[in-house]
Amino acid sequence: MPRESAAKIYEVATRLFGDQSYPATSMRDISQAVGILPGSLYSHISGKEALLFSIVESGVTKYLEAVAPVAESPEPADVRLRAAIAAHVTVVAENIQLTLVAFHQWKYLEDANRRRVIDMRNAYEDMFTRIVQDGIDTGVFTTTHDARFSVLAVLGMLNWVPEWFSPNGKASTEEVAEALADVVLSGLMSPVPAAKGRKPRSR
Amino acid sequence: MPRESAAKIYEVATRLFGDQSYPATSMRDISQAVGILPGSLYSHISGKEALLFSIVESGVTKYLEAVAPVAESPEPADVRLRAAIAAHVTVVAENIQLTLVAFHQWKYLEDANRRRVIDMRNAYEDMFTRIVQDGIDTGVFTTTHDARFSVLAVLGMLNWVPEWFSPNGKASTEEVAEALADVVLSGLMSPVPAAKGRKPRSR
Repeated sequence: MPRESAAKIYEVATRLFGDQSYPATSMRDISQAVGILPGSLYSHISGKEALLFSIVESGVTKYLEAVAPVAESPEPADVRLRAAIAAHVTVVAENIQLTLVAFHQWKYLEDANRRRVIDMRNAYEDMFTRIVQDGIDTGVFTTTHDARFSVLAVLGMLNWVPEWFSPNGKASTEEVAEALADVVLSGLMSPVPAAKGRKPRSR
Repeated sequence: MPRESAAKIYEVATRLFGDQSYPATSMRDISQAVGILPGSLYSHISGKEALLFSIVESGVTKYLEAVAPVAESPEPADVRLRAAIAAHVTVVAENIQLTLVAFHQWKYLEDANRRRVIDMRNAYEDMFTRIVQDGIDTGVFTTTHDARFSVLAVLGMLNWVPEWFSPNGKASTEEVAEALADVVLSGLMSPVPAAKGRKPRSR
């Protein structure tokens, strides 16, 4: 059953890379956990580096494919940003372990593969940057800061989700996405105007 | 020079745990990089686990000590949240490598130490929760969502900072802190009221 074996190898490697880190996981660990001889791994994959790259690429691709149509839609920027956040959270909810490997273990890739992942990550960041910049240009967003800070704030918020979100927990994927989008779009104080320089008020 | 050696061991271990992960770093790697015999490490530390715990504890403690006075101040919640974000970003800027180890490698600690770190992390999250909840209770924050989501949004944003911030880059620590605080407090659209359910407007 070669195809099933390949799927099993990816599944086991994703778990081991996530649980014990890529550098600490040997091909022997993977073959033992899959239940095949070490040599049999190589009929499916060329090596540990190629395995990590495939896993990271498949993870990041899920995010790119989910957010690309949203980023390119003709909706106003706030609607698009809300939809992009929802698309991201939906991918997290369905791929927590894959996401943790794709977002943290890619750093252990060697130069060429590392560069390819950085390009994919930059393409993902660019989708959010275009939405935010478009929102600023059209006056939908009133932030006075460079778009980059808002994008990094949003991506940080999103990249943290796999650390705390449980698809079986109290909050649904939709609720989480809505709450996070509201923080970014409306802020905690909206519709009260920004409070910079205001004197502390008595409570 | 026993005290200098201890400092050097912590510095080298922090770099190696960050660069190649804790599980993949051996005591031999550390002693080689420090330039002492493996046996000499044990006159300073009891083992690799104790070394990681010390590093993580010292990292998380910096954050707790920086934000605690802010969290307990009598200022209104928005002023306190802004100050807490600034305090956090200041600690990041001065401790990027330590922060990456403290926030990512702690997961490899064994049960008792892991539990102690989780308690410290929860205490840190609680400081932000008290600020946000107080903001909601006093009407300073108008968010309709559970305080937890706002806190997790803020912490995600903050935990992502060491991934992109360079203390030698164009933006100062103060600018970064201000921009992030503005995203959370005012949102991208403020002072425009929240846009939920609004029809897309033409541009």
